[in-house]
Amino acid sequence: MPKFKSPIANRQSPIVILGIDPGLADTGFGVIEKLGHQLTAIDCGSIKTPAKTLIENRLKTIYQELNKLIKKYRPQLIGVEQIFFAKNAKTAIAVSQARGVILLTAGQHHIPIVEFSPLQVKMALTSYGQASKNQVEQMVKIILKLKSIPKPDDAADALAIAICSANQS
Amino acid sequence: MPKFKSPIANRQSPIVILGIDPGLADTGFGVIEKLGHQLTAIDCGSIKTPAKTLIENRLKTIYQELNKLIKKYRPQLIGVEQIFFAKNAKTAIAVSQARGVILLTAGQHHIPIVEFSPLQVKMALTSYGQASKNQVEQMVKIILKLKSIPKPDDAADALAIAICSANQS
Repeated sequence: MPKFKSPIANRQSPIVILGIDPGLADTGFGVIEKLGHQLTAIDCGSIKTPAKTLIENRLKTIYQELNKLIKKYRPQLIGVEQIFFAKNAKTAIAVSQARGVILLTAGQHHIPIVEFSPLQVKMALTSYGQASKNQVEQMVKIILKLKSIPKPDDAADALAIAICSANQS
Repeated sequence: MPKFKSPIANRQSPIVILGIDPGLADTGFGVIEKLGHQLTAIDCGSIKTPAKTLIENRLKTIYQELNKLIKKYRPQLIGVEQIFFAKNAKTAIAVSQARGVILLTAGQHHIPIVEFSPLQVKMALTSYGQASKNQVEQMVKIILKLKSIPKPDDAADALAIAICSANQS
């Protein structure tokens, strides 16, 4: 019988969380690990689809790229931003269509989904509902101990959603 | 050398068209065959998803059932109703998410998609943009030589979209 417990056996295994900022042209993604209260950025970026392409092919690209990300990182939780409607109905339809494909993909992999409104994301990261995009991005940088704000914006937004999801997990 | 051409060799093969009226709770579908100017109803119905179910599971049901329909009838053209926005933003988001999954599914099977607004459907079937739901359904019954108006409403609407698509094919 070992005298000491192995430190490896004691170690918690990190939870992998994927945050997604849905869009038809740009779907931001951010992958983080949560170990205890420690959050670490693993990857982030944006799934881009060209404007002059059939809508069904743009949705297929989102589906395929998201499948690749899920297979690569095996997230245990996916956070998806809710759709904010005030600005433009046409954009909202396009984003909702992309969002449907994202929720379907998460569902096909049996990964639990949490959803946050833009207001909830701002409140969770800055405690201020009127926070600017830049203030939220600064908090992403600080919380994840990054050297700079991740680019593009969608990637930083997706990391913010992943941080929100980690706080709920 | 045969004296007469075989009537079978002369026969055009029919085009199979699938019309879809997207919805999260009820996605109507209608399958018709077009041979020359003759349209024939093959099947219609509604993919239903229970309200108290996770959104991702409802979208998975739509994806799976639509895949089954496509494998069964092998449509060469899919017509999908566009989203009409005036009434309720929340419903519009839900329908758009379902619609994204429908477009993705059609795209994965490499089937061309045509899209129609509710106004275009009314104009195509009744030549009257202010036509009532019942007037459109009566025209579906007449054009497809049905004994009665198909039920549920979503199925009749989907057949109307299939007829529109046939006129464009």
